[in-house]
Amino acid sequence: MGDPGPLLALTTGEPAGIGPELAVRLAAEGSPAGRLVAVGDPGLLAERAAALGIGLALVPLSPGDPVPAARPGELLVWPVSLRAPARPGRLEVANADYVLETLDVAISACRAGHAAGMVTAPLHKGVILDAGYAGFSGHTEYLRDACGVEEVVMMLATDVALHATRPGWVGSPALRVALATTHLPLREVADAITAPRLTRLLRILAADLVRWYGIEAPRIAVCGLNPHAGEGGHLGREEIDVILPVLEALRDEGLRLDGPLPADTLFTPRHLEGVDAVLAMYHDQGLPVLKYAGFGQAANITLGLPFPRTSVDHGTALDLAGSGRADPGSLRVAVALAADMAARRLQPV
Amino acid sequence: MGDPGPLLALTTGEPAGIGPELAVRLAAEGSPAGRLVAVGDPGLLAERAAALGIGLALVPLSPGDPVPAARPGELLVWPVSLRAPARPGRLEVANADYVLETLDVAISACRAGHAAGMVTAPLHKGVILDAGYAGFSGHTEYLRDACGVEEVVMMLATDVALHATRPGWVGSPALRVALATTHLPLREVADAITAPRLTRLLRILAADLVRWYGIEAPRIAVCGLNPHAGEGGHLGREEIDVILPVLEALRDEGLRLDGPLPADTLFTPRHLEGVDAVLAMYHDQGLPVLKYAGFGQAANITLGLPFPRTSVDHGTALDLAGSGRADPGSLRVAVALAADMAARRLQPV
Repeated sequence: MGDPGPLLALTTGEPAGIGPELAVRLAAEGSPAGRLVAVGDPGLLAERAAALGIGLALVPLSPGDPVPAARPGELLVWPVSLRAPARPGRLEVANADYVLETLDVAISACRAGHAAGMVTAPLHKGVILDAGYAGFSGHTEYLRDACGVEEVVMMLATDVALHATRPGWVGSPALRVALATTHLPLREVADAITAPRLTRLLRILAADLVRWYGIEAPRIAVCGLNPHAGEGGHLGREEIDVILPVLEALRDEGLRLDGPLPADTLFTPRHLEGVDAVLAMYHDQGLPVLKYAGFGQAANITLGLPFPRTSVDHGTALDLAGSGRADPGSLRVAVALAADMAARRLQPV
Repeated sequence: MGDPGPLLALTTGEPAGIGPELAVRLAAEGSPAGRLVAVGDPGLLAERAAALGIGLALVPLSPGDPVPAARPGELLVWPVSLRAPARPGRLEVANADYVLETLDVAISACRAGHAAGMVTAPLHKGVILDAGYAGFSGHTEYLRDACGVEEVVMMLATDVALHATRPGWVGSPALRVALATTHLPLREVADAITAPRLTRLLRILAADLVRWYGIEAPRIAVCGLNPHAGEGGHLGREEIDVILPVLEALRDEGLRLDGPLPADTLFTPRHLEGVDAVLAMYHDQGLPVLKYAGFGQAANITLGLPFPRTSVDHGTALDLAGSGRADPGSLRVAVALAADMAARRLQPV
């Protein structure tokens, strides 16, 4: 079988959604990238595998147990028990605790070095809020708080192989787009772009491109906030008042930063050549081009944590759950990227 | 030579910029798409051709003159005289009147039916403002006012041939992105998205996709303003309060409209399939993906005018002027798109 690669914990997410069946399908394919251990209810996984006609032997283990040699048709599982029966498409508030426990198990295992990183299938924010976790705002923030770090960076990336297939392409082979702000109404974005925040995010981004990607002196291209990057102040002053001073100070620290550049100039082959990551100022400035470039199959990466964490870029798709029609493409990319990061990390686990 | 196609007036733009040399280079290539008549100073064009080592015979004509059969190595010109000598890279305020006169000549000719449409090389807004035209804000608004129409729509498009080369691509062959707002600071965008404005823009966009593109019942995909199109009001209410009611009212009039959709969902092959144009709410929501898709060689189209008008998507590039290194790619696309529109128009000139 060759080297199975680093062990990755795959949380199977909301049990009424497509997460469990995507995990099963990916396991049946045989991950080309890393060894997976699913975190979830073994009965649920067996049920979804049977419904898809997939013969899969589940191998229950505990974090820290010796990992047996990989065999086709087997899926390692760190068991977590459902609180209520899970039916495709039917949310159960009682299972919010189950979903959070899968995260806790994976996070503890990563922190203890029993897994080299984690990949998350989608959870359903609404059902966790309904269960009384009023402060819950998503995987990313949950991980940040569980790991006790002040700030994390959301970055999306396409699979490395994608651009290589594009005739005439001269830009970077993998497109990586980090966001300075994430899920904010558009009218709140400009005020959220502050010098301390940009400084923290750029330091994390630069450090993690070294740490997880093995890039010695990463080059980061930074978008302006306004169209044409403000056109010398005629279309907004945030570039002059906030972004430029931050870039200048960080260049003095040795960071390699381009910009602030107009977003529609930056995302062209000539400007992307040699660029290791782009920092977009907000969600819809950076992600449409990333999803377009990735044919809708990108993955989400959280930087700033003590271990690699990747995620699918889609939701629970309750309407598709159980149909067998859900596309495992993004999960495949998420696993490949996490395995890549875990294999390349410069520090030992 | 075959049918030379419709006659297109090409304004050669700021004389210190790259416009004149791009016009000369395109003429020397022989336009595959339409017959060009340059609007500018014949001496300037001859000088730039000589500097590039291009042997080009200029054929001066007046608008309305019979158009001679096309011959290789010839460029038709409607002469307009420089007010001051033009040197590459050196702006001369006195030549602002020259630039505006080239526009006036082209607009009059299009309105009189002496040309089927116009293509514009870049002008320099600053020098026109410095010359005392305080209200001047660009080609698009100048054309709108000169033609006496209330509203125009800025749309960018890639060349039709580009997507066909992309392996695995199933989306629309040409990407066309219209903008609901254009050159506004980001913090002013949300308030500029009003129901009357969206209604006017969508009516123009739908009508001109019929008129200039021969699409019988065009399908338009509309982006939300906020990330995730507001996620049911959690990330902003403009979709619910403004955009959705406009789309519903226009659907009742027979328009085929998708959305409002999250921009990062919309710009994926599956959602673009069968879509004739996208309406983005603002500049950096729509143009990065368009420029990325077009390898930086897209063209700008003004809809809502009585004739087709296209433009390059770049500026005067004063630093490149005279170097011979300016890329005529966008001008080539602009000419191809204008010729296409002029040939397909349903109404006679």
